[in-house]
Amino acid sequence: MTDRPYEHPRPGEPNSGAWRHMDWEHLGSRYAHDLILFQARYDQLKHPGSGRVFERIVLESVDWVNCVAVTAEGRHVMVRQFRYGSRYTTLETPGGMVDEGEDSLTAARRELLEETGYGGGIWTYLGSVEPNPAFHTNLCHHWLGIGVELVAPPSPGTGEHLAVELMTDDEVIGAARRGEIRHALALSVIGRVLDLWPRPQL
Amino acid sequence: MTDRPYEHPRPGEPNSGAWRHMDWEHLGSRYAHDLILFQARYDQLKHPGSGRVFERIVLESVDWVNCVAVTAEGRHVMVRQFRYGSRYTTLETPGGMVDEGEDSLTAARRELLEETGYGGGIWTYLGSVEPNPAFHTNLCHHWLGIGVELVAPPSPGTGEHLAVELMTDDEVIGAARRGEIRHALALSVIGRVLDLWPRPQL
Repeated sequence: MTDRPYEHPRPGEPNSGAWRHMDWEHLGSRYAHDLILFQARYDQLKHPGSGRVFERIVLESVDWVNCVAVTAEGRHVMVRQFRYGSRYTTLETPGGMVDEGEDSLTAARRELLEETGYGGGIWTYLGSVEPNPAFHTNLCHHWLGIGVELVAPPSPGTGEHLAVELMTDDEVIGAARRGEIRHALALSVIGRVLDLWPRPQL
Repeated sequence: MTDRPYEHPRPGEPNSGAWRHMDWEHLGSRYAHDLILFQARYDQLKHPGSGRVFERIVLESVDWVNCVAVTAEGRHVMVRQFRYGSRYTTLETPGGMVDEGEDSLTAARRELLEETGYGGGIWTYLGSVEPNPAFHTNLCHHWLGIGVELVAPPSPGTGEHLAVELMTDDEVIGAARRGEIRHALALSVIGRVLDLWPRPQL
């Protein structure tokens, strides 16, 4: 899906060179709170200009994954679920955490199956994004599955409660435009498959 | 930029009705760690199906803002900065936090001016996204500023270190496609202005 392979480093790996002069020197870290989804870490970092030392919060976590999963009839398999941060029920693409030792495709297919009961299909990698490089250490991987079908009942975890919804391209685009789909990472993966936005004149 | 005004609630406000049956009942909250960027909160929530109670982590914060800022010559005003989560220098759109009592347009113009020295221009709202409704309570607002110009030297805070870069549409699209721009929220605002991705055949 991309012009050429990603050359960008993984989070935590240094830049290849051109921007190394902007790196803040890492003087030390202390681990703090276990935040269930994250391990909080405080880094002591030296400003490359002034030399002053600042403490910065970092939230360590595993990678995430989400997917656009489309049936042979061209229906997008979407999920509604109550989200604890927003405190309302959102409309999103299937996805979740990449488990230890798991590759992101396996995680995408596992999450799709658990959340919706859909499986099978032909899968294509759509690239990855940094959920927020200011404080997250992870990537979110985007996958496209074409030709998925219902193969089992959904089997969400005991701590999940989901509703599955099948939507046409136009319904997905409409839901994005009116703000019903508003999760940045869901819009990120959908936006690599569908042209979501009217374009302003620059 | 949108078909019609957003009807979606703000985070923390209930859905208008159709999906209220999926809401988890809120039994209580306890505030925990101050994480500099966030106030950590643990919510006790009752699963609407099983009735089981779960504790969920929520990170309270102010809203964020970012922008596509374009000069009269059609150059995008972009910033490079070392990011503490990824531990490398990223290429992003200007942006930051919406201060208490500030509207998001004022915040977008303030952040652009502080980070790059650019000001002026004609501004259009591009909508908002949930950075991650699973645990964030905030929105990120997207703005487009057309015809911005250099009006002052950049004045980043003592804890910031930035390089400004002017890029054509094609350079921005190329940087997104090869993964040099990879911050989900930067791609989110750029994706409302430029068509970034090749489209797969569904």
